[in-house]
Amino acid sequence: MSHKPVVLKIGGSAITFKEKPLTPNLRVMKRLAREISKARISKLLIVHGGGSFGHPIAKEYAINEGFKTKEQNIGFCWTHSAMVTLNSLFVNTLIQRDIPAIGIAPSSCILTKHGRIYAFDDKALTKFFEKDFIPVLYGDAVIDVAKGFSILSGDQLVSNLALKFEAERIIMGVDVDGVYTADPKKHSSASLIPQLTLKELKKMYKNLGDAGTVDVTGGMLGKIKELIPAIREGITVSIVNATKSNRVYKALKNEKVVGTYIQKG
Amino acid sequence: MSHKPVVLKIGGSAITFKEKPLTPNLRVMKRLAREISKARISKLLIVHGGGSFGHPIAKEYAINEGFKTKEQNIGFCWTHSAMVTLNSLFVNTLIQRDIPAIGIAPSSCILTKHGRIYAFDDKALTKFFEKDFIPVLYGDAVIDVAKGFSILSGDQLVSNLALKFEAERIIMGVDVDGVYTADPKKHSSASLIPQLTLKELKKMYKNLGDAGTVDVTGGMLGKIKELIPAIREGITVSIVNATKSNRVYKALKNEKVVGTYIQKG
Repeated sequence: MSHKPVVLKIGGSAITFKEKPLTPNLRVMKRLAREISKARISKLLIVHGGGSFGHPIAKEYAINEGFKTKEQNIGFCWTHSAMVTLNSLFVNTLIQRDIPAIGIAPSSCILTKHGRIYAFDDKALTKFFEKDFIPVLYGDAVIDVAKGFSILSGDQLVSNLALKFEAERIIMGVDVDGVYTADPKKHSSASLIPQLTLKELKKMYKNLGDAGTVDVTGGMLGKIKELIPAIREGITVSIVNATKSNRVYKALKNEKVVGTYIQKG
Repeated sequence: MSHKPVVLKIGGSAITFKEKPLTPNLRVMKRLAREISKARISKLLIVHGGGSFGHPIAKEYAINEGFKTKEQNIGFCWTHSAMVTLNSLFVNTLIQRDIPAIGIAPSSCILTKHGRIYAFDDKALTKFFEKDFIPVLYGDAVIDVAKGFSILSGDQLVSNLALKFEAERIIMGVDVDGVYTADPKKHSSASLIPQLTLKELKKMYKNLGDAGTVDVTGGMLGKIKELIPAIREGITVSIVNATKSNRVYKALKNEKVVGTYIQKG
């Protein structure tokens, strides 16, 4: 088995109920913990999204637009606190399966500038990783040196970590089966794209640009745009459905699995 | 009102039930949040201890002795996770009182060496402080570059933060009224020492040394030993009972209060 690192992203919509504020999907968390435990990846980094924990509060207080009024500071605090709660629930579920998972708070060690990672003190993170702990990071409200504060997306973190730790693979666990030719929630004719090269992916973005701002795939292209710098470096990306049994497990084991597989070319 | 920073330590034994694992004292937390809110200290840093959250697990897995076996890694993860839970409860109680409290995870940004702070990335912490957030740190399980991992006490953090941010005062909120001439839990003749100079304090440590390892004050001298470097720099220390109403409030307001007041000389 390869010992090159794997970065696993678990979408917030997979481990929370999107329509219910602050409601975790503990059943999915527990199943994912079992799958991660069974896969026995020694060098693993996990990132999760905010789902119904981070997003509603961040939106209410317009955290991503940066500092405008003092009242937003309380919203910033609530956003981070909600993410800590979600992270804690997921981390505890992993530890219960004997996975040495350690939550790393992005806002304690990362600053952004205009929303992009600007300073990332990764000394503690790197030590945890070297000692075979499994760091679990998350999309977070962070200090932004240009606009006061910002939202750092889990997807931006995934790309950053994959490059920093020279990962072999990125696995994106989402709530659909992968990238479709059209929005599968709207078009029954939409079909799953099993494989994409970087060139093909770029062509899809070009078409997207021509078509205005509508992402015909139902938002998946927007999510994976952050990963292009990693793909360009030869890191492969598997997009699989984390809400369905064994998809994440098979992706971790590098087995054939329903999903979209993206590689440089 | 002075705008020089104040560092407030809240002992774990004040905000948890010491004898009951993982049991927070929410009543004390809520009262402290009211007192902190009412005192309106603009430049405040808070540190809390572990109480029945951190200590039992850290002890069970001998985290403070450093890495010996792989099984300890799970104990390390549980210790940190328990501290995150306690921190979250306290931080949320503060935010509910409109205090812009932001939990800072020591293990995400601090490394120790032989148990002493060795690398402390304080970029995010400093930015939060500058922007009038109130950082809330805690005693934590951290990576130690010499012995694998260690416990970083809240008291060591207090001294470090007071010096780093050039604090005017340190307030130690504990579960007794201050420093006594003898252990107040064992000797009815024990009397509270209202004031101490650094010289007098050092003399007490000398007597302690002569008497062997028994701290006649019932452990309080051990707790404040970490603060000597700060006292030497002219930072004053007020030790007050955080389990009693308005003691922390009065100390924050720099009003006369039952407790032990320590200054350089």
